[in-house]
Amino acid sequence: MNTDNLQKSFLKIRSNKAFELFVIFIIVFSALVIGAKTYDIPENVLTVISWLDHFITLVFLVEIIIRYLGEEHKRDFFKHGWNIFDTLIVVVSLVPIENSEMALVGRLVRIFRVLRMVSIIPELRLLLNSLMKAMPQLGYVILLMFIIFYIYAAIGSTFFANINPTLWGDISISMLTLFRVMTFEDWTDVMYETMTVYSFSWAYYLTFIFFTAFAFLNMVIGIVVSVLEDEHAKQKAEQDKADGKHTIEDLHQQLEELKALIKQQK
Amino acid sequence: MNTDNLQKSFLKIRSNKAFELFVIFIIVFSALVIGAKTYDIPENVLTVISWLDHFITLVFLVEIIIRYLGEEHKRDFFKHGWNIFDTLIVVVSLVPIENSEMALVGRLVRIFRVLRMVSIIPELRLLLNSLMKAMPQLGYVILLMFIIFYIYAAIGSTFFANINPTLWGDISISMLTLFRVMTFEDWTDVMYETMTVYSFSWAYYLTFIFFTAFAFLNMVIGIVVSVLEDEHAKQKAEQDKADGKHTIEDLHQQLEELKALIKQQK
Amino acid sequence: MNTDNLQKSFLKIRSNKAFELFVIFIIVFSALVIGAKTYDIPENVLTVISWLDHFITLVFLVEIIIRYLGEEHKRDFFKHGWNIFDTLIVVVSLVPIENSEMALVGRLVRIFRVLRMVSIIPELRLLLNSLMKAMPQLGYVILLMFIIFYIYAAIGSTFFANINPTLWGDISISMLTLFRVMTFEDWTDVMYETMTVYSFSWAYYLTFIFFTAFAFLNMVIGIVVSVLEDEHAKQKAEQDKADGKHTIEDLHQQLEELKALIKQQK
Amino acid sequence: MNTDNLQKSFLKIRSNKAFELFVIFIIVFSALVIGAKTYDIPENVLTVISWLDHFITLVFLVEIIIRYLGEEHKRDFFKHGWNIFDTLIVVVSLVPIENSEMALVGRLVRIFRVLRMVSIIPELRLLLNSLMKAMPQLGYVILLMFIIFYIYAAIGSTFFANINPTLWGDISISMLTLFRVMTFEDWTDVMYETMTVYSFSWAYYLTFIFFTAFAFLNMVIGIVVSVLEDEHAKQKAEQDKADGKHTIEDLHQQLEELKALIKQQK
Repeated sequence: MNTDNLQKSFLKIRSNKAFELFVIFIIVFSALVIGAKTYDIPENVLTVISWLDHFITLVFLVEIIIRYLGEEHKRDFFKHGWNIFDTLIVVVSLVPIENSEMALVGRLVRIFRVLRMVSIIPELRLLLNSLMKAMPQLGYVILLMFIIFYIYAAIGSTFFANINPTLWGDISISMLTLFRVMTFEDWTDVMYETMTVYSFSWAYYLTFIFFTAFAFLNMVIGIVVSVLEDEHAKQKAEQDKADGKHTIEDLHQQLEELKALIKQQK
Repeated sequence: MNTDNLQKSFLKIRSNKAFELFVIFIIVFSALVIGAKTYDIPENVLTVISWLDHFITLVFLVEIIIRYLGEEHKRDFFKHGWNIFDTLIVVVSLVPIENSEMALVGRLVRIFRVLRMVSIIPELRLLLNSLMKAMPQLGYVILLMFIIFYIYAAIGSTFFANINPTLWGDISISMLTLFRVMTFEDWTDVMYETMTVYSFSWAYYLTFIFFTAFAFLNMVIGIVVSVLEDEHAKQKAEQDKADGKHTIEDLHQQLEELKALIKQQK
Repeated sequence: MNTDNLQKSFLKIRSNKAFELFVIFIIVFSALVIGAKTYDIPENVLTVISWLDHFITLVFLVEIIIRYLGEEHKRDFFKHGWNIFDTLIVVVSLVPIENSEMALVGRLVRIFRVLRMVSIIPELRLLLNSLMKAMPQLGYVILLMFIIFYIYAAIGSTFFANINPTLWGDISISMLTLFRVMTFEDWTDVMYETMTVYSFSWAYYLTFIFFTAFAFLNMVIGIVVSVLEDEHAKQKAEQDKADGKHTIEDLHQQLEELKALIKQQK
Repeated sequence: MNTDNLQKSFLKIRSNKAFELFVIFIIVFSALVIGAKTYDIPENVLTVISWLDHFITLVFLVEIIIRYLGEEHKRDFFKHGWNIFDTLIVVVSLVPIENSEMALVGRLVRIFRVLRMVSIIPELRLLLNSLMKAMPQLGYVILLMFIIFYIYAAIGSTFFANINPTLWGDISISMLTLFRVMTFEDWTDVMYETMTVYSFSWAYYLTFIFFTAFAFLNMVIGIVVSVLEDEHAKQKAEQDKADGKHTIEDLHQQLEELKALIKQQK
């Protein structure tokens, strides 16, 4: 009974708007602290920032404990990806950092705290989820694009490796170079260099640009169509609700029944 | 009674098409004067331009007074953002400029006079309003994009600050560099530089490009969908008007009543 | 009577599919001749090409005469823009070219012959017409974009003219530089240069990119929506035809009449 | 009877999911072998890879024989483009390579094996087919774009050939340069160079960018509209099925009949 009351009071804190705003404020504040650290700052300010860092970690720890205790079914807490993410960020922040290599990891974890913004604002969480949901649909287009990249990179590193090993040395470097070509970043410099040896290599670049642009276009259209279909489905559901689920077919049947009734009267 | 008559006559001037065309002509003329001043021009022409400038300021002053006096409810005049903007431009133009620093501000104000084009042509005002209306909807996507930028800038200035302080010195410079990467402007130069130290830093750039491209795509689709929804709503309203608001459901009910009537006759 | 017969026989030639294909072939051939002339070619080949040129001009002259004579109402012939274009190309080709300056004009006219491809293939003519039709709708967006360019160019040439006169010398050069910034072409080089003097000038570039991107996006969406509306109108027309123009409202009225009839029987 | 049984058992193998997965695995494996060859690898590993290559060729040969024998109507086998592609890849792989020139062709064929991924996964085949199907629709837009390119290239090589023969030497090089301008790749460098001689040549580049951007936009919209029309047709077909093919027109006719019946009763 006692724990149940405690859980309910924690749930009340968790659902409190002021509590949520306070956490958002702390996240924004921690983001500013991270940003401040990238500037050249005097020693004593660094000490203050270090203390603020400990304070933020503490707030996050308390917050996650409140949210955990506020959960009715303790087991379900770690079923949500964002809860796992939040806990991980807090736990790693608590680990004392000593040697320099771990210090970098510690800084990275502090940076990822900003992502907690996404975990705490429902609208951002929704946005990210909808982005995630669009991914599998695009799976085959991405696979096709990867095949195009792989084939062109294999051709590129076969023919151009001797011309410029920095750009075409092996298949992975070639794929990076092709990504550069896809973004049109100084792609003519890359092309003119290989054209001095293979004068027809412009065909290699032009077909690559054509194929990737086409695949990319297809991807974009795929997303647009899937979004519009969702919209259409929503509208149709509303329309059906307004029409009370009676279709033209239903009306047709009723008219047939009416005719039968009138004929009987005769 | 007298002021009322005056107000009506001013309103008549304001609504006059010729008056509007004259003001548009003066705005275009003032834009040309601004453009002319950027060329090397002889001293005497400069004097002429200076006089023209005073003339334009005078016309704008008279115009704003006419529009103010033409307003029925004087208090509502400053409730419209564009009226405040117009008045501000005129008032600042009237302030005599002496020292060189203020001269620049004066020139800026004269440039912003061209924006009066938007305030005077209703179609442009409508266009800008519809752009403004689309903004809040995109708020969360922009927030998400800012978070992506902030996290990547924090990582970038942590790891790459020692490699090139001009590009990665602090978090704000890093954000500018990342914006450059997003526009694909010589982004490979930035990447190749950091790859000499961290050979896996290509992953940093590729994931960043992927995330921002995805968020941007989402934004564009968001606008398209909202525009199409507006279109759809308009079409539906027209359709409903044409159908006389009777839905299939109504027809169904009427048929039921008909059946009941016929059965009664039996 | 005689001229009428002649006109009909010319019309027959004009409508002949073989004649059309022959003209298309001659246009393609003339395009190849133009292309050939850009290569280094021996003297004797040049003489052949020169003769071919005269032959092509002759064919085009004969073709335009046939088409003119085939026209029933001679006055309507020059009411079509494409006919005027074709006649102009032929007439200018006939003018003997002597001095070197006119020679360039002659070459240009020969190049524009390739555009006859558009005037002779109906599908291309249709495509271009639909592009032209979309233009006026976009008029205000283009005007808004021009205002943005003009204001930013005026600001740019006011502040940056002393930093780099080649890029910001006067308002027209500034507009060209801003177009370059809009295409993201080495825009950071332009920015870094002005940032050495005005360290906050990044705001100038970022807001400019934001505004033009937004206006451009709006333009694209404008076209998409107008295209989709056309599609929708077409579909609706088909739907109405299939439904035989009877709306739900009509059905409602008929049901009311039926009810009245049944009630009368009672 | 015997051959018929054999054919059926081969068909069974071909339709086997495990067999398909095995072939996909071998294709992925062959892709990895191709990738590995682009790195600097010790002699003995090269020997192993060479043996693996022979093994992959053997697997592909066996697979194509199984698929051929599994086909009921042997003649139809080579009617499918992908079957011809697969057979060609296998046949060329079997040809013994001796001189160095043929070695490159052999390597290319091995690279194209990765494309077998598309021929074996039905979803990718479908995707590519849908891309192919969109092509003819866009034929006229591509023709229009080619005409724009050809005319501008002819003008470019006429006027700019003396300024920079590397970029404007003849019509084909000019078209490559114009493609570069279309991708905005260092296009201002190209422009500034010609502007030193013809100071108004910026108009050449700006109109070219405008025309190609417009034609490209038209192409994209063409694809989007055709995709949406397909979607719409699909939805309409579903709707019609749901409505049981009875249109509002049918209901109207039935109501007329009903009225006639009731009037007869009177």
